[in-house]
Amino acid sequence: MPDFNEISSKMHEKAGYKDPLAFGIARVLKNMKGESIKVDFAVVNYKNSFASAAVILHALEKNGAKLDFNSPEAVYELHGGVLNDALEPFSSLFNELDKHANVKALKCAKNAAKVDYTLDYSHSFEAVFLYDDAKPASVESVYLKLYLLSKNFVKPREICLDGAFGILPNLAWDESGEPYELEWLREHEIELKMEGKYPNIAFIDKFPRMLSHIIPSDNATRVLDSAKVRLGAHLAPGTVVMPGASYINFNAGTLGSVMVEGRISSSVRVGAGSDVGGGASILGVLSGTNGNPISVGEKCLLGANSTTGVPLGDGCIVDAGLAILEGTKVFISADNRKKLAQINKDFSFDKEIYKARELSGLNGLHFRQDSRSGQITAALSTRAIKLNESLH
Amino acid sequence: MPDFNEISSKMHEKAGYKDPLAFGIARVLKNMKGESIKVDFAVVNYKNSFASAAVILHALEKNGAKLDFNSPEAVYELHGGVLNDALEPFSSLFNELDKHANVKALKCAKNAAKVDYTLDYSHSFEAVFLYDDAKPASVESVYLKLYLLSKNFVKPREICLDGAFGILPNLAWDESGEPYELEWLREHEIELKMEGKYPNIAFIDKFPRMLSHIIPSDNATRVLDSAKVRLGAHLAPGTVVMPGASYINFNAGTLGSVMVEGRISSSVRVGAGSDVGGGASILGVLSGTNGNPISVGEKCLLGANSTTGVPLGDGCIVDAGLAILEGTKVFISADNRKKLAQINKDFSFDKEIYKARELSGLNGLHFRQDSRSGQITAALSTRAIKLNESLH
Amino acid sequence: MPDFNEISSKMHEKAGYKDPLAFGIARVLKNMKGESIKVDFAVVNYKNSFASAAVILHALEKNGAKLDFNSPEAVYELHGGVLNDALEPFSSLFNELDKHANVKALKCAKNAAKVDYTLDYSHSFEAVFLYDDAKPASVESVYLKLYLLSKNFVKPREICLDGAFGILPNLAWDESGEPYELEWLREHEIELKMEGKYPNIAFIDKFPRMLSHIIPSDNATRVLDSAKVRLGAHLAPGTVVMPGASYINFNAGTLGSVMVEGRISSSVRVGAGSDVGGGASILGVLSGTNGNPISVGEKCLLGANSTTGVPLGDGCIVDAGLAILEGTKVFISADNRKKLAQINKDFSFDKEIYKARELSGLNGLHFRQDSRSGQITAALSTRAIKLNESLH
Repeated sequence: MPDFNEISSKMHEKAGYKDPLAFGIARVLKNMKGESIKVDFAVVNYKNSFASAAVILHALEKNGAKLDFNSPEAVYELHGGVLNDALEPFSSLFNELDKHANVKALKCAKNAAKVDYTLDYSHSFEAVFLYDDAKPASVESVYLKLYLLSKNFVKPREICLDGAFGILPNLAWDESGEPYELEWLREHEIELKMEGKYPNIAFIDKFPRMLSHIIPSDNATRVLDSAKVRLGAHLAPGTVVMPGASYINFNAGTLGSVMVEGRISSSVRVGAGSDVGGGASILGVLSGTNGNPISVGEKCLLGANSTTGVPLGDGCIVDAGLAILEGTKVFISADNRKKLAQINKDFSFDKEIYKARELSGLNGLHFRQDSRSGQITAALSTRAIKLNESLH
Repeated sequence: MPDFNEISSKMHEKAGYKDPLAFGIARVLKNMKGESIKVDFAVVNYKNSFASAAVILHALEKNGAKLDFNSPEAVYELHGGVLNDALEPFSSLFNELDKHANVKALKCAKNAAKVDYTLDYSHSFEAVFLYDDAKPASVESVYLKLYLLSKNFVKPREICLDGAFGILPNLAWDESGEPYELEWLREHEIELKMEGKYPNIAFIDKFPRMLSHIIPSDNATRVLDSAKVRLGAHLAPGTVVMPGASYINFNAGTLGSVMVEGRISSSVRVGAGSDVGGGASILGVLSGTNGNPISVGEKCLLGANSTTGVPLGDGCIVDAGLAILEGTKVFISADNRKKLAQINKDFSFDKEIYKARELSGLNGLHFRQDSRSGQITAALSTRAIKLNESLH
Repeated sequence: MPDFNEISSKMHEKAGYKDPLAFGIARVLKNMKGESIKVDFAVVNYKNSFASAAVILHALEKNGAKLDFNSPEAVYELHGGVLNDALEPFSSLFNELDKHANVKALKCAKNAAKVDYTLDYSHSFEAVFLYDDAKPASVESVYLKLYLLSKNFVKPREICLDGAFGILPNLAWDESGEPYELEWLREHEIELKMEGKYPNIAFIDKFPRMLSHIIPSDNATRVLDSAKVRLGAHLAPGTVVMPGASYINFNAGTLGSVMVEGRISSSVRVGAGSDVGGGASILGVLSGTNGNPISVGEKCLLGANSTTGVPLGDGCIVDAGLAILEGTKVFISADNRKKLAQINKDFSFDKEIYKARELSGLNGLHFRQDSRSGQITAALSTRAIKLNESLH
């Protein structure tokens, strides 16, 4: 039996063979119609582990699967025969499985007891390949892309999730993480209620929660309420999500250590060292930004109950309670225009009043409302100065 | 044995017999004193299924129950004898039970294994009848009314829940939905802790959570955190409740598809197509509206972190961060008064400045704060125009 | 065998013997290295039960433990021999165990079945003594201090928790309250996922949730979402914590019956009869108060989505949506200065405009923003008048 390197080489010589952009090995829950409703990836690879991919595809082909390298994605079942053939070339690695996640996943799949589901479910093991970042076409590839985000392989807005809402089924999830189809619940409600076995539903959604799938890569990340973070959120190491009024949607998140006590809507990125204060809202492309996704720079402070509707550079402050929307008119004094010009060389501060969207992405702005006149102003932020000094 | 139609006819001929406004069949959890502490309705009927009601009442009477048609509500235990006698007239329907929810519930009650509770609890099956919408007098009728709201049989403010707080016991609920009486927990704390069996309490409240009892009637409704919606909330199909800072109390909710990222207080109704932005608060009769319940019309937008303390018509916008309370003074320019008058024929726009409560229920208002002067203004909303056009 | 009084007397005569400030008896979960990762106190004593403490220490010494009265804290394992010797002097009380919590805890520890943990955990029983309120030095003493706060033995800011973050391990907790070390999860992820046994993680944090450990002492306290209250929060009887945008951190809380729909940051105290409105933020020493901890007086109303960054006296109102920070300039009219002076005898109202921090702790202030001019003002609060009248 040739070892995995030989098989990989041979596969790579085949006409049309392509290395995947990403692939993963998953346990997949299926409903009575055989449709996939939940995907647990045991391992996810991004631009990596090409030999493992080749060996799995080789085993699939040997077992009769028709390989597809022309579609952006491909989903294959890993039944017993495939698992045997995929594992054999790796037999030299069996005594150091912890170093070889894909091999370990295949071996665990082979050993896993067939579970009898009471909910008319079945499960299968699958390999999911992504060749191009096109619109996802399966529940499996949506989950794979959400994993790529939450495992920090890609950043928010770097991967295509168009149509994900249409692909994922809307499910009721109980406290232990078990999904129920709504139709199944409706059919069985009466007997479940009368027998005292009606499940305690924790939420109804198309997206699972991040903590049901992802272990942070560091020990400093904290998420005080799993309901607050959807799978597909991007939490850089050191991010803390408090349980008050916070929320991080999929395809959104932090690029460094950030204290999150407010809302990071889909498409939003927040830079390292920033604070999203209690109840602060950062608007997403679906909620008030006219389609312009918002990035918040590093070391910014979004005050409690503030609302940010425009992109911010580094070291900015939005005062507590303030809403800075695209059309908000912002006064900047001559003195502050001069100071701000020094750290925003490419911007021409040529007037007194700006619409907030004109100030998009500038550094060191401190937005406040003058409590005597009600006027909204921007001044040089104290965070900007610190930021500046730290560069010297 | 006469069939259910005959029995129903005979019952209806009896002096004093009345069809119920609503009735339901429930499994009821009882504490050591025999008090009801949790009610799971397997089926709830509203102005419907009068024959089933009559047959159940007939079986109760036959088994010695004294029927009461003079009180606004009546609660009866469905023990084995009653269940037998209530089921027999329906025997012709036993092969199509899924079409006959009440019969199925009776049959499931009969078949349900007696559960031995470890918590010194027992359970019984009960039929709960509501004849008039008076103040509820039992745990069972409070639950029945909360079900009527959450199953969308009645709208918020349409049913009397006065005194519900005094009737429902305050309980600790664990993650699986099991209720614990606080006194029981106190008595058993030491041994439970020392044996590592202290339950993981998820919340302490008089009201259960909606998702522990109710399956949405459509597949588009989503509730991302069950803690956010009390039983007795009214979620019209298509409503989405996000997990950030949202909350829907009992006797409150949506009348159509609404995106909910903020708080809908008790007594509040929100119309179809409206958005309750992240952290937006709509005040309830117990929290700042001087007892005037708030309705928000259709296609409104309540911006992130806004606060709404007055009723709004259709197509209104409250900008992010803004608080519109009863006494807020609102400036409307001559031009906007003219435009607004066209879609609010019954209102006389005869001055420049209005208290917000004077504008209650008007259509097409866009509330904003002038970011140069701090003045709060109302103008014609772009949502109003869309709304208007859609009517032509 | 001498009884507990004799033993206690003898122990108290020993040179160096000291009564503890607090002590407790706990079941402690240990990881594979024997490190304590979770502490469940079955009973906690504060300035009390000195005889029980003496008997336990006597039993420890008899079984070879070296007692330490010079450190601020001491942690001892209660193995079988210690438990026997500690229980024997109390044998006369065995038929009324419910009146003697410490004895009951010792007896339960002795009887508790040894649990086999699947997670490579073990557990032990321990007695934890606190002699001085110094920086905590162990997981056990941090938990003991958090219990002292949440059992209302001490108020927020009355006990030293410096360094607690460094001592507590960051853990993943599943829905049933079981803690997992992140490293263990990473090592076992693949097999858990492939076998369908990956735990449903509810949160990742150093602090457990209050409701996993504490039963309120009254039946009126309600906490609608356990995620909202960390162990170490101080909830006075009658406090209600709603699930929308609320949060109470450790070392923070209420001093009387308070309706909490907003955020009470670490170090904050809120007085009886106050309302913390939906989404209202009270800033903590770590979030914008320049290190000045905030107390909110009695019968205050913090409006929905308001932000409070300065201490308030009794009967104050902060209007919905308003942010009162240290530097906010507040106008007070001559008329209101006169009225406010009557209930704030020690304050000299000698100008028109004040920075909010100058007004710290004054009674009866109503902060609002003039909706015509944007100016922030303070007037005499209607709550102040009520408060005043209630004193006569």
